[in-house]
Amino acid sequence: MAIEPSVLILNGPNLNMLGVREPAIYGTETLDDIEALCLEHAESLNIAIDFRQSNIEGELVSWIQQARGEHDGIILNAAAYTHTSVAIMDALSVTELPVVEVHLSNVFRREAFRHHSYVSPVAKGVICGFGAHGYLLALDALARLIDADMNDGN
Amino acid sequence: MAIEPSVLILNGPNLNMLGVREPAIYGTETLDDIEALCLEHAESLNIAIDFRQSNIEGELVSWIQQARGEHDGIILNAAAYTHTSVAIMDALSVTELPVVEVHLSNVFRREAFRHHSYVSPVAKGVICGFGAHGYLLALDALARLIDADMNDGN
Amino acid sequence: MAIEPSVLILNGPNLNMLGVREPAIYGTETLDDIEALCLEHAESLNIAIDFRQSNIEGELVSWIQQARGEHDGIILNAAAYTHTSVAIMDALSVTELPVVEVHLSNVFRREAFRHHSYVSPVAKGVICGFGAHGYLLALDALARLIDADMNDGN
Amino acid sequence: MAIEPSVLILNGPNLNMLGVREPAIYGTETLDDIEALCLEHAESLNIAIDFRQSNIEGELVSWIQQARGEHDGIILNAAAYTHTSVAIMDALSVTELPVVEVHLSNVFRREAFRHHSYVSPVAKGVICGFGAHGYLLALDALARLIDADMNDGN
Amino acid sequence: MAIEPSVLILNGPNLNMLGVREPAIYGTETLDDIEALCLEHAESLNIAIDFRQSNIEGELVSWIQQARGEHDGIILNAAAYTHTSVAIMDALSVTELPVVEVHLSNVFRREAFRHHSYVSPVAKGVICGFGAHGYLLALDALARLIDADMNDGN
Amino acid sequence: MAIEPSVLILNGPNLNMLGVREPAIYGTETLDDIEALCLEHAESLNIAIDFRQSNIEGELVSWIQQARGEHDGIILNAAAYTHTSVAIMDALSVTELPVVEVHLSNVFRREAFRHHSYVSPVAKGVICGFGAHGYLLALDALARLIDADMNDGN
Amino acid sequence: MAIEPSVLILNGPNLNMLGVREPAIYGTETLDDIEALCLEHAESLNIAIDFRQSNIEGELVSWIQQARGEHDGIILNAAAYTHTSVAIMDALSVTELPVVEVHLSNVFRREAFRHHSYVSPVAKGVICGFGAHGYLLALDALARLIDADMNDGN
Amino acid sequence: MAIEPSVLILNGPNLNMLGVREPAIYGTETLDDIEALCLEHAESLNIAIDFRQSNIEGELVSWIQQARGEHDGIILNAAAYTHTSVAIMDALSVTELPVVEVHLSNVFRREAFRHHSYVSPVAKGVICGFGAHGYLLALDALARLIDADMNDGN
Amino acid sequence: MAIEPSVLILNGPNLNMLGVREPAIYGTETLDDIEALCLEHAESLNIAIDFRQSNIEGELVSWIQQARGEHDGIILNAAAYTHTSVAIMDALSVTELPVVEVHLSNVFRREAFRHHSYVSPVAKGVICGFGAHGYLLALDALARLIDADMNDGN
Amino acid sequence: MAIEPSVLILNGPNLNMLGVREPAIYGTETLDDIEALCLEHAESLNIAIDFRQSNIEGELVSWIQQARGEHDGIILNAAAYTHTSVAIMDALSVTELPVVEVHLSNVFRREAFRHHSYVSPVAKGVICGFGAHGYLLALDALARLIDADMNDGN
Amino acid sequence: MAIEPSVLILNGPNLNMLGVREPAIYGTETLDDIEALCLEHAESLNIAIDFRQSNIEGELVSWIQQARGEHDGIILNAAAYTHTSVAIMDALSVTELPVVEVHLSNVFRREAFRHHSYVSPVAKGVICGFGAHGYLLALDALARLIDADMNDGN
Amino acid sequence: MAIEPSVLILNGPNLNMLGVREPAIYGTETLDDIEALCLEHAESLNIAIDFRQSNIEGELVSWIQQARGEHDGIILNAAAYTHTSVAIMDALSVTELPVVEVHLSNVFRREAFRHHSYVSPVAKGVICGFGAHGYLLALDALARLIDADMNDGN
Repeated sequence: MAIEPSVLILNGPNLNMLGVREPAIYGTETLDDIEALCLEHAESLNIAIDFRQSNIEGELVSWIQQARGEHDGIILNAAAYTHTSVAIMDALSVTELPVVEVHLSNVFRREAFRHHSYVSPVAKGVICGFGAHGYLLALDALARLIDADMNDGN
Repeated sequence: MAIEPSVLILNGPNLNMLGVREPAIYGTETLDDIEALCLEHAESLNIAIDFRQSNIEGELVSWIQQARGEHDGIILNAAAYTHTSVAIMDALSVTELPVVEVHLSNVFRREAFRHHSYVSPVAKGVICGFGAHGYLLALDALARLIDADMNDGN
Repeated sequence: MAIEPSVLILNGPNLNMLGVREPAIYGTETLDDIEALCLEHAESLNIAIDFRQSNIEGELVSWIQQARGEHDGIILNAAAYTHTSVAIMDALSVTELPVVEVHLSNVFRREAFRHHSYVSPVAKGVICGFGAHGYLLALDALARLIDADMNDGN
Repeated sequence: MAIEPSVLILNGPNLNMLGVREPAIYGTETLDDIEALCLEHAESLNIAIDFRQSNIEGELVSWIQQARGEHDGIILNAAAYTHTSVAIMDALSVTELPVVEVHLSNVFRREAFRHHSYVSPVAKGVICGFGAHGYLLALDALARLIDADMNDGN
Repeated sequence: MAIEPSVLILNGPNLNMLGVREPAIYGTETLDDIEALCLEHAESLNIAIDFRQSNIEGELVSWIQQARGEHDGIILNAAAYTHTSVAIMDALSVTELPVVEVHLSNVFRREAFRHHSYVSPVAKGVICGFGAHGYLLALDALARLIDADMNDGN
Repeated sequence: MAIEPSVLILNGPNLNMLGVREPAIYGTETLDDIEALCLEHAESLNIAIDFRQSNIEGELVSWIQQARGEHDGIILNAAAYTHTSVAIMDALSVTELPVVEVHLSNVFRREAFRHHSYVSPVAKGVICGFGAHGYLLALDALARLIDADMNDGN
Repeated sequence: MAIEPSVLILNGPNLNMLGVREPAIYGTETLDDIEALCLEHAESLNIAIDFRQSNIEGELVSWIQQARGEHDGIILNAAAYTHTSVAIMDALSVTELPVVEVHLSNVFRREAFRHHSYVSPVAKGVICGFGAHGYLLALDALARLIDADMNDGN
Repeated sequence: MAIEPSVLILNGPNLNMLGVREPAIYGTETLDDIEALCLEHAESLNIAIDFRQSNIEGELVSWIQQARGEHDGIILNAAAYTHTSVAIMDALSVTELPVVEVHLSNVFRREAFRHHSYVSPVAKGVICGFGAHGYLLALDALARLIDADMNDGN
Repeated sequence: MAIEPSVLILNGPNLNMLGVREPAIYGTETLDDIEALCLEHAESLNIAIDFRQSNIEGELVSWIQQARGEHDGIILNAAAYTHTSVAIMDALSVTELPVVEVHLSNVFRREAFRHHSYVSPVAKGVICGFGAHGYLLALDALARLIDADMNDGN
Repeated sequence: MAIEPSVLILNGPNLNMLGVREPAIYGTETLDDIEALCLEHAESLNIAIDFRQSNIEGELVSWIQQARGEHDGIILNAAAYTHTSVAIMDALSVTELPVVEVHLSNVFRREAFRHHSYVSPVAKGVICGFGAHGYLLALDALARLIDADMNDGN
Repeated sequence: MAIEPSVLILNGPNLNMLGVREPAIYGTETLDDIEALCLEHAESLNIAIDFRQSNIEGELVSWIQQARGEHDGIILNAAAYTHTSVAIMDALSVTELPVVEVHLSNVFRREAFRHHSYVSPVAKGVICGFGAHGYLLALDALARLIDADMNDGN
Repeated sequence: MAIEPSVLILNGPNLNMLGVREPAIYGTETLDDIEALCLEHAESLNIAIDFRQSNIEGELVSWIQQARGEHDGIILNAAAYTHTSVAIMDALSVTELPVVEVHLSNVFRREAFRHHSYVSPVAKGVICGFGAHGYLLALDALARLIDADMNDGN
């Protein structure tokens, strides 16, 4: 494991359209803006990040699988796949890495089918409703979890 | 926006097998036959069409995203993904284009899980049960919607 | 059977109030406007039409029964009875005529109880969400179905 | 109350189409045939009958109300309204007459929504699945119930 | 609009049997008794009333439609149709008049299917369980609502 | 097949306690009384009967299996097993004999779990609510069904 | 029992914030305003009132218990506890006093969980949707109920 | 509004037992430890905090009501009341302050009844699963929300 | 009725395997051990007991039927049949004897299907979770119930 | 731990009204009567008891928390809170003491919402339906559980 | 344990009718045919088999109990009891032997109530849809499981 | 069709991680190990195999489509997509080849959402719970099905 911990930040379908899609719900920041914010915050935490987006469920599954051995934790905003993907849930179980689930919007204020998440039961914790700031909170949370893991030798 | 309106016609999983699959339900026309019918009908309406098929949910999501700015409306037969894809639903919301949902068969005469559609709540309207002819009706409907949009400056 | 096919167009409860009721949902056209549009379009298709409205479920049932032998197809906008009337469903089964279900609004964007239709399982197909234009699309669809029936001797 | 008991036999929507509608389920006998059979059987039981049909829920409600004081019992085949009419259920409660529910087909072999009856909880008993013969069995059953009522002074 | 406000009081199926039907639940007053009470009370409020009853859903629908322009408010005891009629619900939406829903009995103490009302979501308010007196309370409530509407120019 | 048709009349658990159990629901007649009534009525119909009772589900299953080849029809009051026994349902399917389901009480006026029957979907018809008289009606119904079968060579 | 009847008017959680909370739903009147209106109206009816509010479920329970012997009826706006409190339901059963349930808003136009009330099945009747005026209607209703009770010696 | 923003941090039932209760789920930190951590972190953010705990639903309701005008935001760990309290939900609506919902454990890994929250639909966002650290993340999130509110004049 | 009351103690399927089956749930005592404990405790209460076990639902039904007239009460651990047997429920109704339901384990800590009992609604009371000791508590409870019955002549 | 074991007996809302409330269900004994019976029985078992009642959920929660270290077991009749209180459930988990759940009536013969208990999954066992005697049986059960705990050093 | 492993093959209700019952679903082989196939295949695997059938749930329960100590594994086709028998489920738990569940037909293509199995959660694995051949596959699977058990000393 | 039958063996998402993922559930064999076992076993059956894995639903759909004409049967372990993919279900219907569904673990012992399979209704049969050995049993089953197809000319 590297001296500097590494975090995989994965973004699911349609997040590449941020800043375009329903700004009343998601705000005007683009995904590039969020990546820049994460990069800056990660540096301040001495964490390396790998920030990606895909519209394809299976690609997200593969990236999660590959995180095992390459990263120390995952921040996942699975977007629409949050509510439908058992495959992502299973991939997260395989990695055995700490996972923080993030959502830009407060999913509990939206349609009922968005209240259920296949990610939550395999995540350490969930952060939702704080827009782009939620990613930074997730980095803080994950940094602390990774730190604790390293210290107790897990 | 071009003088001649442009419509993206998207076909979901297994529609490439039309003419092969369960002809008692879907008839003997192939997807190429339907494309030819659409092309002929679109010409008579002075509409350009872009006719595609994919078995991959994420590819359909990407094509829908790209329609924004390139096309004036979408005709979508999402096939099996109609009933399971929140990602396609979200992509359609992003485009902010008029969407017409089409199904070859009358889905309400089939298994109960085919009665629910994630597409319908984000579509302008739904046409189902008329086989290949449904695509032509959808073109008529969409032509009128685009025409109305153009006339009132939307 | 007459040389010129004949279509019964039935309208259910409250459709006589069109142009009055919730214009945000149904637009400003009256039912008479829609009848005029249908008449004009039917003529261009060489089809005779019989256009009626009733607020009484049992009267709609009787009209559907009488269509057997007098008409070659039915276009039905059962409005509120769509969601509650087994009697209309049964009457449609008795006629053994092709039925096209029409709704002015996209019912799938409205209250959950409007998502279920007793008409759909006994209809050939469904068209919804296109306002008055939906009746013309239904005429096109039904004309083709009747034509096919006549040609293959059904 | 007359010396000869009188029974109201009510038939709901679409039963006027018997012999026409789905003969595989309901057989080829017409409603007139059934009335003739009932008349003949009622005579053998020294019972007068009043045999009617309506497609209108409210008309059936009114006839049931009027039975109070005019008839000694009701045989009711409410057809489609069996499954949807609280109004008929309430009318039957008002009459305080013995009611026998009849169905030509075995409703429990058909669609799930036909398994529930608003009539059954206010009927003495139910007879279904025996075609026209079910009406004669209902007459036998009702004759016995009326006879018992008369004998114990109810 | 007339100087003296006018209220349509509609009564649904089986209410013509009041005083006969299940007196343990509904009391011994007849519908004529209730009309007389309403007339007397309305006079004291300087309100004109039009008091009607029908067993036919479609007739109630038509009366509600006609209230638009003729009356200033509606008191509706839809009885059994409360629980089954989307058509009445839609008619009430069309009128755009204030509606007060009344029930003689406390429907929440009866069968579960009587706990749901299609009328409530389109009514201003609901009054149930107070027998004939509920109509007078409804008149008081409606008088105040009409008064407020007139005063603020609605 | 014998000249005189033979009917197996099966009675399920606790029916041996008739006359004892909840007389308010089931009356005071014993099962022996019912057997005597059946015997007398069957003779008048020139039908032989075999009348049995068991508290054991598996024994009822075996008796139903053995009916194949020995009897021409089955009258079944499965009592409590009506609501819980898939095994009896399957046995009835095996026999391929006409089955009439009987219940002494009107099961639809009792607890909700008694409204579902595994017997109904494999029976020709159902008779319930007429006490012991229901068995005689069932004999009439079955006699007619057997007669029809014999005449059309089934 | 006192010459002048006495009514306990209880208000549940957050009603102390009236005039502050969501005025679009509840209006601008404060709870003190409502108490004043009630006091004035009660005097005109020759009724004494005891008007209270609590945010604590158990305190409401205790006040209801104490009403037995001190008051002749209860008007209860249990607010949020309407939908969650079996304890209040049980307390109302204990008192054996007539109860009128009141809500300022029409709860049937709000979230689904507000459509169920534990109070309704133990109340005489329900009044909702008329704002502060509902309390006065409730006083009228309760006055009449108490009056009837006194006259027939209950 | 004060120069230094003020945050109310509320803790629901049994959180006073932290460090005692199920340490496998909640860890060994006491509620005093968490208060100390919050105080320290709030100081670094130039925020004043008011940290309280109650086992009584109504007391939490009252504290939330009082926050209006005294505080600029609320952090709420409602513990068991999260899943059962409509009263707390309504109180939060009244305050019109930004609310951050916190849970020590990841509630989505626990019993199904803990997956539903009455708090979430009225909160800005949710943070769960990070133990005591979640409170600090909530402070960060709320600080930013308050800051944004102040800057745009809300 | 005998001077010394008599109690039938019935044990359902698989209880003959006690001491073998899942000792973590049921402990190491055999059914013979429990019978011995019951015998000893019954003697101290001056009660005679008849202790039996069967794996056959119908046999348990017959034994319950026979208890009528022979015993003064029943203690029933129906084991798996608790959750599936309407026949046992009906048999218990027939006996009209006081019944105490016993379970060794706390069924409410086990699979959801074990939370429903067909026995409970026809039992006087339920005792579960106390292992073999539960039988002795049941004897105490039943002794008291029988004693009360005898004293008030029931 | 004291030489003489100590048991906390807690009674939930409305139990202070025993002897008043619905005597057909709960009998005529008051809560004081039950306390006296418990005291007498506890003495015979050499157990000290602390017998309390509260209408306030949060007070019951606090008492349960305080039992830890002061008592050796809890007997809880949570009354209405049984069915609604997650807070009490959580408090019982915190104490890590053996808990016996008691109900005076057989809750399984009452409304469906009383069949679910949040207490049962965290109790050792349940006793219901035996009136005041159930408390004595609970003392017996708890005495044995405490005794076993002491003997094996738990 | 014998040198040659022994397997109990149990067949549930109506399987004795194989070759008779619904051959379209189950084929024309009789149960004797299947026993012969199993015998031949078991010999090739050096396994002894004991092949039985019963229509009685309790008899199957007893046979399963007795397998403990006499056999090394169980192949169970519980037929109809698969879907209804908690008693068989519990018996299988008691034996602590490896269990293979077999069905001739693919139960997932049949009625919904056949999709749930009480056997599956206590079986090692499930094989369905392969007709008689499924028994031979089950023998292969069980032989391997027993072999593995023997080798690792379980 | 080739002399030697050919079977497509498809593996869904995360099966490429076998031997890594949750070994307590899936064992330590890798997917390569399973392919080797299948190859060896297929050779002994004179069957050719094509063994593949994909994490992408659409790729699995395409492979299934292409099997038509190239292979004689399919063995499918769809893993997570088993529970969510209508697209795979539809693709299997298109191929009209015999399909055997395999799962390594006994899915019926896992989370409830894993109990439903979209594959089962379009498969010939299902084999689950036997680890890697299940693939070999599936090959045996499919070999026999293909053999039967070939012999009867299908």
